[in-house]
Amino acid sequence: MSATVRDLGEQELLKIFRQYCSDVVGDDAAAMGSTLPDRQMVVTTDMLVDGVHFSDRTTSPEDVGWRAAAVNLSDLAAMGAQPWGLVMSVGLPPDTEIAWIESVYRGFSECLRTYGTELVGGDTVRSPVRTLAVTAFGQVAKHQLIQRHTARVGDTIVMTGLHGLSKAGLELLLNEQLEEKLLVPIKIGDQVLLGKQLIKAISRYHQRPVPRFDAINLLDKIFQQQNHLSDFVVSGMDSSDGLADAIAQICRASNVGAKIYWDKLPVPEVVEILAGDRALDWVLYGGEDFELVLCMHFELAEQFVQQLSSAVIIGEIIEGNQIDGLEMRSAFQHFANKD
Amino acid sequence: MSATVRDLGEQELLKIFRQYCSDVVGDDAAAMGSTLPDRQMVVTTDMLVDGVHFSDRTTSPEDVGWRAAAVNLSDLAAMGAQPWGLVMSVGLPPDTEIAWIESVYRGFSECLRTYGTELVGGDTVRSPVRTLAVTAFGQVAKHQLIQRHTARVGDTIVMTGLHGLSKAGLELLLNEQLEEKLLVPIKIGDQVLLGKQLIKAISRYHQRPVPRFDAINLLDKIFQQQNHLSDFVVSGMDSSDGLADAIAQICRASNVGAKIYWDKLPVPEVVEILAGDRALDWVLYGGEDFELVLCMHFELAEQFVQQLSSAVIIGEIIEGNQIDGLEMRSAFQHFANKD
Repeated sequence: MSATVRDLGEQELLKIFRQYCSDVVGDDAAAMGSTLPDRQMVVTTDMLVDGVHFSDRTTSPEDVGWRAAAVNLSDLAAMGAQPWGLVMSVGLPPDTEIAWIESVYRGFSECLRTYGTELVGGDTVRSPVRTLAVTAFGQVAKHQLIQRHTARVGDTIVMTGLHGLSKAGLELLLNEQLEEKLLVPIKIGDQVLLGKQLIKAISRYHQRPVPRFDAINLLDKIFQQQNHLSDFVVSGMDSSDGLADAIAQICRASNVGAKIYWDKLPVPEVVEILAGDRALDWVLYGGEDFELVLCMHFELAEQFVQQLSSAVIIGEIIEGNQIDGLEMRSAFQHFANKD
Repeated sequence: MSATVRDLGEQELLKIFRQYCSDVVGDDAAAMGSTLPDRQMVVTTDMLVDGVHFSDRTTSPEDVGWRAAAVNLSDLAAMGAQPWGLVMSVGLPPDTEIAWIESVYRGFSECLRTYGTELVGGDTVRSPVRTLAVTAFGQVAKHQLIQRHTARVGDTIVMTGLHGLSKAGLELLLNEQLEEKLLVPIKIGDQVLLGKQLIKAISRYHQRPVPRFDAINLLDKIFQQQNHLSDFVVSGMDSSDGLADAIAQICRASNVGAKIYWDKLPVPEVVEILAGDRALDWVLYGGEDFELVLCMHFELAEQFVQQLSSAVIIGEIIEGNQIDGLEMRSAFQHFANKD
């Protein structure tokens, strides 16, 4: 019998894909040649499939559109790039309600407007399953390109915001009974919320991920002030597949290890309440928080977390290939069952 | 009851899409801002779905890959652009044989190598239906950008090669009995072929479309020699949806009419044999020949057809909004049934 996609799994399948790909693959987006002499173009693409990546059960069509845009924009931010434009192809069964696809476009556009970019083209085709394929382009000054393979021993590891909240939102959307656990006021961001407002705010972490261009703009600002070109090696990626996965991938690509400051790794209160014993699992492996996990010189990291209130220093890059205490499993294998 | 995609049809659906899109949409690819000061970047995207755009019955996986690349590269050529790179997202059911997707990648890469470009990134996801989403980027000197809306009264209409052959290939692949009609030697391109070789050569028009970068390179060469910048307004598009559709779309976008030189419009011998009474229908509405339909100054057109042996002058742009004798129906409505 011939081997199937199920037999191989996603990682092996990607290896096959890479045999046919130029050697730029491996980061959140591909850096693909120069535009202006000191600028680099980056491009990223994602396919989202009904029943696999979104569901009417947990995600309104507006949110499907927002997520489709945000996931790709986050990949640009993860490369340090500013968005330049997006294209989207849509596959639709003939019985799809027009209202559904209009709402998807509306959510998609809303996200693009929020981050100052636009849809420049696309395709609409017939398909037995609702499918969105998005490609996003961005540009970055060459020396500000953020990649995974450049982390250096001694670098400080910073994350731009909390982890586990997207998972918390998803679990609430899938399981209404969990709401019973949320009877006390809880601080979400800068606000203390209760009841429906609290539920809505948590769900939103899953439904409306935020690409962290604010972090990229801050890095740019710090860099402009300092003018220390050589100190501006920032490595990293986004945490779309989980915080643990991001750290593991950076370490693997850079051939280094990491020490995590476990006592400084924040576990959001709502995650503690909802997940109980498994709270740390949600933080490490929950996925889809779309924060940035960045490695940089300690001085730069200190300035960064001072000016970005949500950012936290969570560890450092060390020699070796171990990550202390972190189970090196991928949080989500597309072709396997979810756990 | 709510309106569905089936109720609206493709054209109306595209109108909705365009409400959310920047105003560059309408050509084969989107022109999306400058790279170097005198260069324009163009981008195009297509989604290909198993059972809709390809089938194991007519297309080997290598050919599925080739076609996925060629269709997008043809859109770049139709804008006058040179390819810069492509990304491809692939959606696969878990029971897809690895050999199938490897063959798709192989065919895709072969096409990219042939036209001097490369795959720079992609995504692989689970989907209930085999789906390929390809995005291609290219660059073009700003004054050499080819668009649909710039055709001028008096322009000569040129096509870069024969039409109806892709349809002939498809019909042969779908209906083996048609082979009985091909018992005499027939000239295909520069060769006279017979038997299996003839069948294979015709099928290949369907399986392995050729993006016409040779035509774009020739236009560039003629332009370099002439240095008549103002004469180099070439309008047009590719004939992916049929020759008739291309002429109609150019006329509509440019608000002009067209006179077709019916006596000069070539009907390939093999199309005459296979289609009989319907031969002209195949030429006009067969689709998927991926030739370029270009409108340009008569002098430029004469030089062009002299140097590109496959190219033919087939008409001229006239005032009004009529195309003499051409039924203005679209050859292929994605959401309707094929005729």
